[in-house]
Amino acid sequence: MQDLESQEKLLKALEAELPEDIRRHFDQLHPSEIADLLESLPKKDRNTVWDQVAFEIKGDVLSHAQDSVRAGLLELMLPNEVAQATMHLDADDLADILNELPEAIADNVLLSMDVQNRQRLASVLSYPDDTAGGLMNPDIVSVRADVPLGVVSRYLRQRGKLPEQTVNLMVVDRENTYLGVLPLSYVLTNNPEASVGEFLISEINFPADTPSREVAKAFEQRDLFSAAVVDNKGKLLGSITVDDVLDVIQEQAEQTVRSMAGLVDHDMFAPLLSSAKYRGIWLGINLIAAFLASLVVGRFAETIQELVALAVLMPVVASMGGVAGSQTLNITIRGLATGQITRANSRILINKELGVGILNGATWACVVAFISILWFKNYALGAIIGLAMIVNLIVAAFAGVVIPLALKKVGVDPAIAGGVLLITVTDVIGFATFLGLAAIYLRG
Amino acid sequence: MQDLESQEKLLKALEAELPEDIRRHFDQLHPSEIADLLESLPKKDRNTVWDQVAFEIKGDVLSHAQDSVRAGLLELMLPNEVAQATMHLDADDLADILNELPEAIADNVLLSMDVQNRQRLASVLSYPDDTAGGLMNPDIVSVRADVPLGVVSRYLRQRGKLPEQTVNLMVVDRENTYLGVLPLSYVLTNNPEASVGEFLISEINFPADTPSREVAKAFEQRDLFSAAVVDNKGKLLGSITVDDVLDVIQEQAEQTVRSMAGLVDHDMFAPLLSSAKYRGIWLGINLIAAFLASLVVGRFAETIQELVALAVLMPVVASMGGVAGSQTLNITIRGLATGQITRANSRILINKELGVGILNGATWACVVAFISILWFKNYALGAIIGLAMIVNLIVAAFAGVVIPLALKKVGVDPAIAGGVLLITVTDVIGFATFLGLAAIYLRG
Repeated sequence: MQDLESQEKLLKALEAELPEDIRRHFDQLHPSEIADLLESLPKKDRNTVWDQVAFEIKGDVLSHAQDSVRAGLLELMLPNEVAQATMHLDADDLADILNELPEAIADNVLLSMDVQNRQRLASVLSYPDDTAGGLMNPDIVSVRADVPLGVVSRYLRQRGKLPEQTVNLMVVDRENTYLGVLPLSYVLTNNPEASVGEFLISEINFPADTPSREVAKAFEQRDLFSAAVVDNKGKLLGSITVDDVLDVIQEQAEQTVRSMAGLVDHDMFAPLLSSAKYRGIWLGINLIAAFLASLVVGRFAETIQELVALAVLMPVVASMGGVAGSQTLNITIRGLATGQITRANSRILINKELGVGILNGATWACVVAFISILWFKNYALGAIIGLAMIVNLIVAAFAGVVIPLALKKVGVDPAIAGGVLLITVTDVIGFATFLGLAAIYLRG
Repeated sequence: MQDLESQEKLLKALEAELPEDIRRHFDQLHPSEIADLLESLPKKDRNTVWDQVAFEIKGDVLSHAQDSVRAGLLELMLPNEVAQATMHLDADDLADILNELPEAIADNVLLSMDVQNRQRLASVLSYPDDTAGGLMNPDIVSVRADVPLGVVSRYLRQRGKLPEQTVNLMVVDRENTYLGVLPLSYVLTNNPEASVGEFLISEINFPADTPSREVAKAFEQRDLFSAAVVDNKGKLLGSITVDDVLDVIQEQAEQTVRSMAGLVDHDMFAPLLSSAKYRGIWLGINLIAAFLASLVVGRFAETIQELVALAVLMPVVASMGGVAGSQTLNITIRGLATGQITRANSRILINKELGVGILNGATWACVVAFISILWFKNYALGAIIGLAMIVNLIVAAFAGVVIPLALKKVGVDPAIAGGVLLITVTDVIGFATFLGLAAIYLRG
C-alpha cells in the first residue's frame, strides 16, 4: 500500500508542477524505492522527476534501477556528473553502470574519476558482467593465516570502517593465494592468541570466469553470504556478496518468464515504437508456426467441406495438445536449468512423461469424444477426435522432453525457443491426425 | 558438469547395488548437493539412496530438499529419528519440516525433542510459514543500546560461538523493544568506550505477520543481509537472514513459471498418477475454454462450408491474438507483482499497450492479408483476415492489461488464472470477428 500512496503523491505533485513536493517526498524514501517509482512512470515524467532527485543519492538510485530505465537516466547526465554521482558506489555496481554506457561516454566517465577509483574498477571491468569476475567487489579485507586473532582485531581497529556488509574476512597466504574465510564473529568470540589458520573455513571459491548462473546456484545451495573470487592461479581477486547474487537470481527468473511469454520487454514504459518492434519479432516467428499449421489444415480442405464439424472441433485437439506439451516442456526446462536432468536420467523422464501423456490423453479423449457425440450426433466423429487427442497428447509429452534436450544440445536456450517449437509440433500433429483420420474414414 | 558426473556415479553404484560406493561418494558432497541428487532420482531409487545418507547430515539434506521430495523422505523416518536428525537445525528450517508432517507425527516429533528445542520452535510455529514470523530464527544475539562496545566484545567472547552467519547484533531497550541493528564489524572497528547507541542503525524491521513476499522485496531493494522481526508492540522476536529470503524468491519465481505453464508439479519424479491428476485439472479447465471457442466456430458452420479457406486460416488469427495478448499480460502481471502498476498509472499502461496492439496489429495484418491473397487468390478474404487481425490484437492488448487488474481486484492470483482467461478471450474474439466478417461479406 506504501507503493500506491507513494505513487499517487508523486503523480499529484507532477500534475500540479510542484517540484518542491517531489523533492520533499523523496527525502523519506530509500534510493531503491525512488528507482521503483521512476520505473513506474512514463518516460517524459521520469525525466522531470529525475531532476528532483538529490545529487548525493543519484548514484544509489542508478544502481537500483533496472537496465533499460537506467540507460535512459544516464542519457540525461554529463560524463563528469556520472563520475561524481557514482564515486562512492561499490566497484561491482559501478561496473554495471559503466557497462551500459556507450564506450565513448564510459571512457569519459572513467577519465573524470580519480586514479584510485579507476584502478579499482579496471579489474572488474576486465570480466564479462555475467561472470564471477563481473559480479565481484575488489574492495575486500584479507588477512594472513599465520597471524593471531588478536593482531587481526588490532588491524581492523586501525583500519577503521570495513566495507558495508562484511561477514567474512578473506584468508590468504604470503603470495595472496586464497585459503579460506574467517567469519567476523570468530574474531570476536575466540581466543586472541589463536591463529587465523585454526579457524579458517575452506569455503567454496569461484574462478573469475565462472558463469554468474553457477555462482547463484552455489550461493543458494550452500546458504552463502559471501564468497571469494580467484584468478586461474588461485590468487584472491575480490569477493561476491549475496545481495549481488539476489539480483542475478531475480534477473534470471524474470528472463525465464519473459522468454516464455515471447521476448517481452523489460521496461513497462519503453517507447511505443521500440516495444512494438521488439515484441513484433516474436509475433513474426509465431506467424511462421501458425502458417505451418494452416498448411496442414489446407491439405484437408475437401474433408472439412464434407464434414464441417471438423473445423468446429479442430481447435480443441490442438489446444489440449499445446497445454499438455507445455506442462512437460516446463518441467524439462526447469530440470535442465537446475542440472537435475542429464543424459543419465532423461530416459526415465521420457518414460514418465509418456505415461502421464497416455493417462491424461485417454481420460480427456473420452470426455471430448462424449461431448462431440452429444453435440454432433455422430459416433464416428467422436471416435476420431478421441483417437486424435490420445495421439496428440502422447506426441506432446514426447516433444515436451525431447525438444528442450535437443535445443540444449545445439546450444540454444530451451526457455526461449522451446515454446514456439512445441506449439508448432502439437498444432501440426493435432490437425494432421484429426483431419487425416477423418479423411480416411470419409473416403473409406 | 560436476552434476552430471555426480549423477552418473550414483546411478552406476545404484545399478551395481554397491551401497558402499554411494556412501563414499556422498562423503564428498555438500548436503544441498545430496538433496539435489535425490530430487533427480525416481522415487524407488530415492528411498534406497536415502538409507546411505549418513545420519548426522540427514537433517541438513532434508532442509535443502524441496517440499514434495522432503515429504517422501520424511515418510521413511520414525518420529524420534526425525527429532534427532533435525535437532541441530535452525528453528526456521526445522519449522519448515514440521509444517509438512501430518499433525500426529509432528506432535510426536515435538515430544521427542528436549524442552529447550521445543520452546524455541513454538514461537516460529505459531506463525504461518509465508509470513515474517514463519521465516524468522528466534536464536538471536541482542544487546542494549546503553552498553559500551567494549562490554559487548567481552560478552560475545564469554558467550562463545554466535549463530552461523551473524552479520548484525540486534539492539533493544530494557523492555526488549527493538531499536535497530549494530553490524558486527562496528564492534571490531570502533572505540570500545563508545556506547552501542551511538552506532545503532535503525534498519527496517518486520511485524511478524508481514507476508514473506513483502519481506523478500524489502531485502532485495535494500540489499539487506538480516532484519529484525517484531511483535505488534515492537518487541524483538527474532531475525530473518538473507539465505531464507533467497529461498522465498526462488520459490516465488518457480511458482510464477509453474502457474504460467498450468499448475505443473514440483517434483520431476512424483508418482505417475499424482502427476497426471494434478496436471489433468489444468487440462480440464483449458477444455472449457477450448469448447467455448468451438461454440463460436460452430455458429458459423455454414459460412465455413461456403468458403473452406476460412477454416484453414482461422487458427492464424487466434494464435497471433494469443501471443500478442500473452506479451501484454506478462508485463502487467510483472508490474502488479513489483507494485509498479497501481490505479494511478494503469490508464497510461492501457493506452501504451493499445498503441502497441494497433501498431503490431496493423503490421502483421498486412503481412497475413498479403499471404492469404497470394494463397487463395481472393482479395476479399485478405481484407477480412487483415481486419480481424487488427481487431483481435487490439482486444488482446486491452484484455492483457484489464484481465490481471480485474483478477487482482477480486483476489485471484493473475499469474494462475490470467493465461487461460486471456486465451479464451483472444480465441473467441478472433474466431468471431474473422468468421463474422466473412459471414456478412458472403451474405451481402
